[in-house]
Amino acid sequence: QYSSGVRKVTLIPGHGIGPEITVAVQKIFEAAKVPIEWDEVDVTAVRGPDGKFGIPQKAIDSVNANKIGLKGPLMTPVGKGYRSLNLALRKEFDLYANVRPCKSLDGIKTLYDNVDVVTIRENTEGEYSGIEHEIVDGVVQSIKLITEEASKRVAEFAFQFARDNKRKKVTAVHKANIMRMSDGLFLRCCRELATKYPDIKFEERYLDTVCLNMVQDPSKFDVLVMPNLYGDIMSDMCSGLVGGLGLTPSGNIGKNGALFESVHGTAPDIAGKDMANPTALLLSAIMMLRHLQLNDHADRVQNACYEVLREGKSLTGDLGGNGKCSEYTNAIISKLN
Amino acid sequence: QYSSGVRKVTLIPGHGIGPEITVAVQKIFEAAKVPIEWDEVDVTAVRGPDGKFGIPQKAIDSVNANKIGLKGPLMTPVGKGYRSLNLALRKEFDLYANVRPCKSLDGIKTLYDNVDVVTIRENTEGEYSGIEHEIVDGVVQSIKLITEEASKRVAEFAFQFARDNKRKKVTAVHKANIMRMSDGLFLRCCRELATKYPDIKFEERYLDTVCLNMVQDPSKFDVLVMPNLYGDIMSDMCSGLVGGLGLTPSGNIGKNGALFESVHGTAPDIAGKDMANPTALLLSAIMMLRHLQLNDHADRVQNACYEVLREGKSLTGDLGGNGKCSEYTNAIISKLN
Ligand SMILES: CC(C)[C@H](C(=O)O)[C@@H](O)C(=O)O
Ligand SMILES: CC(C)[C@H](C(=O)O)[C@@H](O)C(=O)O
Repeated sequence: QYSSGVRKVTLIPGHGIGPEITVAVQKIFEAAKVPIEWDEVDVTAVRGPDGKFGIPQKAIDSVNANKIGLKGPLMTPVGKGYRSLNLALRKEFDLYANVRPCKSLDGIKTLYDNVDVVTIRENTEGEYSGIEHEIVDGVVQSIKLITEEASKRVAEFAFQFARDNKRKKVTAVHKANIMRMSDGLFLRCCRELATKYPDIKFEERYLDTVCLNMVQDPSKFDVLVMPNLYGDIMSDMCSGLVGGLGLTPSGNIGKNGALFESVHGTAPDIAGKDMANPTALLLSAIMMLRHLQLNDHADRVQNACYEVLREGKSLTGDLGGNGKCSEYTNAIISKLN
Repeated sequence: QYSSGVRKVTLIPGHGIGPEITVAVQKIFEAAKVPIEWDEVDVTAVRGPDGKFGIPQKAIDSVNANKIGLKGPLMTPVGKGYRSLNLALRKEFDLYANVRPCKSLDGIKTLYDNVDVVTIRENTEGEYSGIEHEIVDGVVQSIKLITEEASKRVAEFAFQFARDNKRKKVTAVHKANIMRMSDGLFLRCCRELATKYPDIKFEERYLDTVCLNMVQDPSKFDVLVMPNLYGDIMSDMCSGLVGGLGLTPSGNIGKNGALFESVHGTAPDIAGKDMANPTALLLSAIMMLRHLQLNDHADRVQNACYEVLREGKSLTGDLGGNGKCSEYTNAIISKLN
């Protein structure tokens, strides 16, 4: 699918600390001689011809052309008529699987040691359908939409991901005891796909039980696949186990494109002060390299990053250090070998 | 509301380990001279005149008469047409607020020290509406129903609970950035009630953020109020932080009744072997005593239970001990003073 030459990648620095952590990643990739050419675009909400706010056409064109992108945090303007641009991007490119690996990192002290789980979240429907009605005053319904098509493709993605990454088990997370038809359909799709991947162990668990077990013993889990909202929750929770959103990467994968992003906020209070932690964006960029099958480059940059974290010098403030973003970046570059 | 004489309480021992943990609670209460008379009823699903399975009429009558009950775990038969009897009970008596306190216990070692949170879950609607449709083959929608009435009463309950229990803060947990209308309505109701309780701090947080923060630092939270499914998840997660469902109580409170229950399963594998842990049911029964304003009795039994846990002798197998249920029960009785 991908040539071995230089790959053009859409780059969306985003807002707040976005630009500076993006520069950090660019510097590290340049020093590591990663064969990537960045196609930088701005994604600030613009008012379209229909009067609604949305993603600028230039950005859409770029992702459509390159089919792959890296993205910093985006600010969502508050107010009626605005929807999250993060969501708009996932929707625009039909990025149906959201992949969030959470792994304990040497040097990052949390209450947990051996976390190594990957949340795979259905990214296009479910509780995020956007369909809501006020039936009568004070009575609202929101529609959770589950389709066989979307459930099967994300289930297939999860099993294939498990196989490709030498993972052992996929757990389908659901509340089919309550939402018998919708989560029931999702679950049946997972079961069906499980039969096609006999090399991968399959289990099904209630969402509430997984939450309970996860905080008690995350080593019980490996790859998890679930509807949209459950994935939103579970991925943040798992991120918390290993140090938070500043340390965990995310990829949104579709048939015709993929967008890797740090899922933390724009942190406007520290923006422009060379204090931001670029790790989540860097690890997302490393996921992207693997997606491009640039595994050697991915390993090299990842090892350098892990080594800096392990040594615990030059870490940014959120990690308990007093390094600047640029110092941390240089420390990683100095570990490239 | 309650007389100071002997109170009649409906007792639903339930299935599996239910009967033996119920006997444990009865013994302890008897030894503590708690002024309660038990009205024991069986709640095994029976086929009603309409052919559907449901709660036996005798049990319904008893709860309606006594307006208060204590309940062990119930088995839900598997198969079409069966709905959880736990849910059926909450619905039958319109028990609109589910209260689940999770507190770190001396003697119970977990990764967390200072957990002291109370989840207050809307218990009658939301994602548990039971309304689902298959629009066309392979396309299902489940309806999340949020009403102003139910949101306001649970919000009011949460603030009043906070005040009565000398709590400082209520956090409304939501995804109103996604479900703008439904969670938006819930949130507005919380905000409105907040203005009526100026003595209680109010904050609003996204569900995913709360999950992340909770596993990193539970001391950030106090009382939490949220829609049905979010409460299901959050209460189990918090329970995991302090040792699991075997150690955390639950109360379902309505206008005309209240049902206190252990929310763990029936554990059929150890049923009848004098191995079960009655703590969750006992702590639920203690919550019930407070609800009946029998606070002195509640304190006395609770202190005895806490002391046994602290000393760590006679604990049941799930708590890492090798005491039998009856030994643990006697140990608690011996600490009553
Ligand atoms: C920003 C928000 C709309 C988004 C979501 O709810 O999906 C975020 O929490 C995430 O997980 O990427
Ligand atoms: C048993 C199940 C139907 C129930 C629920 O989902 O509410 C349980 O998880 C609970 O929290 O009481």
